[in-house]
Amino acid sequence: MASFDYDLFVIGGGSGGVRSARLAAAMGKRVAIAEEYRFGGTCVIRGCVPKKLFVYASQYHEHFEDAAGFGWTVGESRFDWKALIAAKDQEIARLEGLYRRGVENAGGEIIESRAELTGPNSVRIVKTGREVTAERIVIAVGGAPNPHASLPGHELCISSNEAFHLEALPRSIVIAGGGYIAVEFANIFHGLGVDTTLIYRGAEILSRFDGDLRRGLHKAMEEKGIRIICSDVLEKVEKTAAGGLVAQTRNNGQLSADQIMLALGRDPNTTGLGLDAAGVATDQRGAIIVDAYSRTNVPSIFALGDVTDRVQLTPVAIHEAMCFIETEYKGNPTSPDHDLIATAVFSQPEIGTVGLSEEEAAKKFTDVEVYRAEFRPMKATLSGRAEKMIMKLIVNSADRKVVGAHILGHDAGEMAQLLGITLKAGCTKDDFDRTMAVHPTAAEELVTMYSPSYRIKNGERV
Amino acid sequence: MASFDYDLFVIGGGSGGVRSARLAAAMGKRVAIAEEYRFGGTCVIRGCVPKKLFVYASQYHEHFEDAAGFGWTVGESRFDWKALIAAKDQEIARLEGLYRRGVENAGGEIIESRAELTGPNSVRIVKTGREVTAERIVIAVGGAPNPHASLPGHELCISSNEAFHLEALPRSIVIAGGGYIAVEFANIFHGLGVDTTLIYRGAEILSRFDGDLRRGLHKAMEEKGIRIICSDVLEKVEKTAAGGLVAQTRNNGQLSADQIMLALGRDPNTTGLGLDAAGVATDQRGAIIVDAYSRTNVPSIFALGDVTDRVQLTPVAIHEAMCFIETEYKGNPTSPDHDLIATAVFSQPEIGTVGLSEEEAAKKFTDVEVYRAEFRPMKATLSGRAEKMIMKLIVNSADRKVVGAHILGHDAGEMAQLLGITLKAGCTKDDFDRTMAVHPTAAEELVTMYSPSYRIKNGERV
Repeated sequence: MASFDYDLFVIGGGSGGVRSARLAAAMGKRVAIAEEYRFGGTCVIRGCVPKKLFVYASQYHEHFEDAAGFGWTVGESRFDWKALIAAKDQEIARLEGLYRRGVENAGGEIIESRAELTGPNSVRIVKTGREVTAERIVIAVGGAPNPHASLPGHELCISSNEAFHLEALPRSIVIAGGGYIAVEFANIFHGLGVDTTLIYRGAEILSRFDGDLRRGLHKAMEEKGIRIICSDVLEKVEKTAAGGLVAQTRNNGQLSADQIMLALGRDPNTTGLGLDAAGVATDQRGAIIVDAYSRTNVPSIFALGDVTDRVQLTPVAIHEAMCFIETEYKGNPTSPDHDLIATAVFSQPEIGTVGLSEEEAAKKFTDVEVYRAEFRPMKATLSGRAEKMIMKLIVNSADRKVVGAHILGHDAGEMAQLLGITLKAGCTKDDFDRTMAVHPTAAEELVTMYSPSYRIKNGERV
Repeated sequence: MASFDYDLFVIGGGSGGVRSARLAAAMGKRVAIAEEYRFGGTCVIRGCVPKKLFVYASQYHEHFEDAAGFGWTVGESRFDWKALIAAKDQEIARLEGLYRRGVENAGGEIIESRAELTGPNSVRIVKTGREVTAERIVIAVGGAPNPHASLPGHELCISSNEAFHLEALPRSIVIAGGGYIAVEFANIFHGLGVDTTLIYRGAEILSRFDGDLRRGLHKAMEEKGIRIICSDVLEKVEKTAAGGLVAQTRNNGQLSADQIMLALGRDPNTTGLGLDAAGVATDQRGAIIVDAYSRTNVPSIFALGDVTDRVQLTPVAIHEAMCFIETEYKGNPTSPDHDLIATAVFSQPEIGTVGLSEEEAAKKFTDVEVYRAEFRPMKATLSGRAEKMIMKLIVNSADRKVVGAHILGHDAGEMAQLLGITLKAGCTKDDFDRTMAVHPTAAEELVTMYSPSYRIKNGERV
């Protein structure tokens, strides 16, 4: 033991890395954590947090409009992109400091450098060239936007990374992709006044989400004025003489815009990490292969979070880190639980969802009850905004368990969080039915849908 | 049977009355429903619904301010009270129509008149003087603000009824009371720019709510600029020469204001209802006494909703109505379930709560775990608004069940609705713990409080 420089060396200062480093250090372990860029990881630096701040910013335009229906006259408003970026950067810097201090206060050592594996128990600190050894190594280097290098002109495009630091707000943007990142940014840019087009290869945005929500969000975004092109892809991007960009699509001619953003998935950050030197196995996407306890094929090396390409979510990486600590340092083997993870898409309207979509439930169970409500939120009655909220509960008739809950509309993410508890606990539709409504709320619809809207038997809607 | 004019006569067109009339009529019963004022009851006409519309209106001022932190410059805003009232009245009229049509479409008869009991099976339609008979009579006449007739000058004051129809927005208001109505209106008026003072007899607002939330809301309201005077009462109200009002308090001298609102509880609407003629028993507050199936002491007469002074909430009245229908018309005796009712206070910040307060749990259980988080909501990091969110879970250590959940902050009502399901289903803290967080949300705090903030053993905090 004493022959190693550290008990634990963590590569990557994101959610999973920081949590494992901090907890191990707090237990008295000799811990170092290396980060080449900024502490906090994708979530804090260029993901969840700045994204949600942008979402807030992009919603004010609608607040100003909606106010009229409630008796308010609002003077002309102006938006200053640079002011938002500066405010966001200040908050991100504050959070980064909290992450760093969390590790330091627990007694961990912070190394501001890229680190690469040189063997099963050794790491090279790139900035100094120093090689150190550790009994255990955690790889938590996350992922990065797929650059889509096969697209001619991809180097002219931005990814979500750059979107957080644009010098100026573009007048127009084309976003390629149909996943949650593409959809969220389309709403952000549109809300800030940018002429926005979304182009997606698939037949409908947000594959794998419940079909009702996918169609409902698509419709709502179009009604706001976002152009959505499905079943099409970019084939080429070029600069125009005027300094803008023009993209050639396969089926819809040319699209011109100030910026083109590629949101076509994320890749594990494993290139040049020294995985070969250490003998760590990866899959064909470059993701590190781990077992149920986040162990790689090398007994001393573990991997957490996005680099393992299990479920690319901050809370999952944190959970995996906590399980790693329980298993390796507390003698309590704990396998991360990836079942029934509630998630939100911070689109506008928002999506909150947990469990099986209607389509998945119809395949899995022979008799499914679907409870569905579509209604105008109370605020919209006075604001006059054309928006509908959709709520769905998917119930397995055999045991009455709620196996899916799907919401489109305000606060859907907050609701999904709490619906997640009910699904995790195996609550039945009867538990929902015997809960008294809280009036007036939107969520009360979820406990007052007493009769199924329809059933699905053996995959057929009846 | 055929000797009665109706199978069911309902007195009162509010939530409980309309639901019972509509459901019975839809079953083919001969049903009439009499309402002297407007269909929809307190909830729709001068309660929950217009109140929440006012809440929305009163929040825009903060939206305008908050926008600056996100890069927006907003021109000067003006608020037009008459425009809000007109918009609100239009929406209320629409909802009233929905309530009426619900009964009519089901085949029920609408009678626009006051109706008074003349016997166990007979009612007099006051407008026409006609007397009709019915096999069953449902009394669902609701309640009304206590006029506080013992206060000299009470006739110069308004209640919540008048607050929904003021000719002009007052420049200043004094609100007497510390319950949810007083608190909600204090925030509404303050948000609309009215100089607002709340005066309450008790030591802290919102008695019976969790102490943390009571203190937290008190502090937040004061920070916004609402003056709160506890442990004091109005002793006299008089007109001033200038046309305003001045109230004499017991301990705090005089309070001057354009309007004084009394929100000192609500009384059952039983005066002059003919209860004596029918032999229906009431308690000392005038509330109709009912058994577990909403039966009065007269076998043919039932009472639902606020007039019974059980739990004065719209969903409860509707639930009691549905139980009445099950019991009397479907051969399925069903007793209303008044246990674990989640509720919201649409104060600013909002309160959402279900189950036992910390104080109640400490009395009921010998070993209680309290999980408590107090944090700045993410939006406030950029808006700069000084506001804290409070979340608490109260757990009975003996069986790990979550017996209380209390939230102060945005969307607390929506959250309380869904937490209500978890408490009703008997979920344990372990069910919360094994639920993955949804990031970034506020509600994720509720599933990431892994260690108790403190425990209460035999009533003592340890």
